[in-house]
Amino acid sequence: MKYSIYLDYAAATPVDIIAKKAMEPYLTDVFYNPSAIYQPARDVRKAVECARATIASVLGSKDQEIIFTAGGTEANNLAVHGIMRRFPQGNIVVSGIEHESVLIPAKNYDCKIAKVKQNGIIDLNNLKELIDDNTVLVSVMYANNEVGTIQPIKEIASFIAEQRIMRAQKAANSNPLPIYLHTDACQASNYLDLHVSRLCVDLMTVNGGKIYAPKQSGALYINKSVELLPLIEGGGQELNLRSGTENVASIIAFATMLQKVQNERKVESQRIKSLSNTLFARLSQNIPAIIMNGDVKRRLPNNINFCIPNTDGELLTMQLDHAGLMVATGSACTASNDEPSHVLVAMGLDTDRASSSLRITLGRQTTEDDVHAAAEILTEVLSKYQD
Amino acid sequence: MKYSIYLDYAAATPVDIIAKKAMEPYLTDVFYNPSAIYQPARDVRKAVECARATIASVLGSKDQEIIFTAGGTEANNLAVHGIMRRFPQGNIVVSGIEHESVLIPAKNYDCKIAKVKQNGIIDLNNLKELIDDNTVLVSVMYANNEVGTIQPIKEIASFIAEQRIMRAQKAANSNPLPIYLHTDACQASNYLDLHVSRLCVDLMTVNGGKIYAPKQSGALYINKSVELLPLIEGGGQELNLRSGTENVASIIAFATMLQKVQNERKVESQRIKSLSNTLFARLSQNIPAIIMNGDVKRRLPNNINFCIPNTDGELLTMQLDHAGLMVATGSACTASNDEPSHVLVAMGLDTDRASSSLRITLGRQTTEDDVHAAAEILTEVLSKYQD
Repeated sequence: MKYSIYLDYAAATPVDIIAKKAMEPYLTDVFYNPSAIYQPARDVRKAVECARATIASVLGSKDQEIIFTAGGTEANNLAVHGIMRRFPQGNIVVSGIEHESVLIPAKNYDCKIAKVKQNGIIDLNNLKELIDDNTVLVSVMYANNEVGTIQPIKEIASFIAEQRIMRAQKAANSNPLPIYLHTDACQASNYLDLHVSRLCVDLMTVNGGKIYAPKQSGALYINKSVELLPLIEGGGQELNLRSGTENVASIIAFATMLQKVQNERKVESQRIKSLSNTLFARLSQNIPAIIMNGDVKRRLPNNINFCIPNTDGELLTMQLDHAGLMVATGSACTASNDEPSHVLVAMGLDTDRASSSLRITLGRQTTEDDVHAAAEILTEVLSKYQD
Repeated sequence: MKYSIYLDYAAATPVDIIAKKAMEPYLTDVFYNPSAIYQPARDVRKAVECARATIASVLGSKDQEIIFTAGGTEANNLAVHGIMRRFPQGNIVVSGIEHESVLIPAKNYDCKIAKVKQNGIIDLNNLKELIDDNTVLVSVMYANNEVGTIQPIKEIASFIAEQRIMRAQKAANSNPLPIYLHTDACQASNYLDLHVSRLCVDLMTVNGGKIYAPKQSGALYINKSVELLPLIEGGGQELNLRSGTENVASIIAFATMLQKVQNERKVESQRIKSLSNTLFARLSQNIPAIIMNGDVKRRLPNNINFCIPNTDGELLTMQLDHAGLMVATGSACTASNDEPSHVLVAMGLDTDRASSSLRITLGRQTTEDDVHAAAEILTEVLSKYQD
């Protein structure tokens, strides 16, 4: 019997019925270009600005600090390229477990990569050592997409705040480079506090595709003090930082969902944490060789990433799929390639262990029945390896 | 009585019911990340590749020459920045009536702007003069978004082909710069032949938002010989030229509509041409001062752009809106600004005439009744100016 259970919510989420209903009118009935000047178009403009205000209120920012982008990857690129092109004399410091949409853009510039400890948490001392007077951007993701580890963003922010003061003092009357902190909160949005003034970040990426809104919806929070250049130029939409007729329907759906998941995050985190605890306990009981990857406590409630020695993660994923369970090896965001996860490797895992790891991520549709069925499927498939 | 007639199809189009139905399952039921490896995700990948094949077949290209982008503005930016960053020693030649999403990116580089004749058609001799041995990109839009004039793309292509041969001969054994032709076909897609091998273009932008598919869907055709750099880096999707989880639902809708409008373009062009002829004839009869902007023949069938001396286009647009008719002044793609249309100015119209111009664009939902009602509203509103 094939019982299809989806446990790969970090890769993609279905659009919530509420989001779908909210976006529908903007596809067909009120499809107007928000930059047109007749009244029905101005109503569409109002809806876009209302969505922006909703997001700003969720993030605790000003409305004009929210720039809509076509997804998280674009927002990360805008943060990195936008700032590094504005300050080409500066350097960038990122962690070794950033998403490729931060890591690859960063490598175009003078880029320093901070170490990560074996538990998947950034090595704060190393990060501090790497930051110098020419560092203009530090980018550390809020919660990792593969192992779910939550990074100490507030500590990083307060170190950067000190640097900013010292730099201003040292420079005396000359003009020091600015230093900004960016965090990629794509995976964090369902479960963690996104309030930018509590986190003290200057830029933050949020992504609709991971919070039950359409793919390629998202935004970059950009503190009003930040100077950066646009990636995509033209008609001057989004304060000249993202030209192109606004994707109105997706923007409406995205704002609806960001508000919803943030409103419900505490209750949902508890529910999900209990389910993932149950699942991992069952697996540990049935498969003694299992090893959790990444910090056990400082991780997203929906993430279980583990290694089962002497297996092949990719083969395993296919066998599990055949048995009715959808899970991932590393990040599905990377167009298929055969290399072991750069995240697990950065955590110091050897290639063998990295290649025998699986990622399970739960979501809003996951039930207790799903978790029990998943445990059974995993146990059965893995039993074949235990001879 | 308020009778709301929409005649601004160049600014935005409603999503066709067929496109909406085609995209819906990919928002909710089959929402999987196309890069995941379980079967349901591989089915989504197949759907994306099938959409790509549909577009390739419509454009007469190879599948892998179609790169999905988040809209026309992004595709134009990818063409210009992608090539100019790859060949920084080169220059770019564009026409003065390009969309801002070509013009503004181009101005970051050594950019030469070809003149346009008063009829809104590019001055071919001037274009030829501007192209030199260092020109790597020529970008001329297929049909203009404001005045609808159709540019002689094939002639430009054959001149570039000659240049390419001469350049290779001249360079003998050294390595000459390549020279590519890009055309922005966003406004052309509903009415003109998009076959890239008949047009002989190397890159072509197509945009879902103007062909009854969702906003921020689109693609850039890139001939396999073209070398360019990505704008947005990360997971390596779209042959590494546009990273980010694919906007599957919009891609499906976009392919559906590109095929549909191209299949029906001849019949629809005739229908629309007849309607716009009727409308302009009525207007000319009732408002003798009216002057058509742009070539009367070499223009899109749905476009009427005209000047009524001693009026204020923006005020007129609002009065017409109040009377139940939605039309545009210049391009609605430009986030509201007060400057006169750069297109009309490039055509040699003085500021006064540019500021007293209106753009009417018809579309699939436009009926004969709409046209008659629009003529009445325009006549009535304009009669107030004729004292």
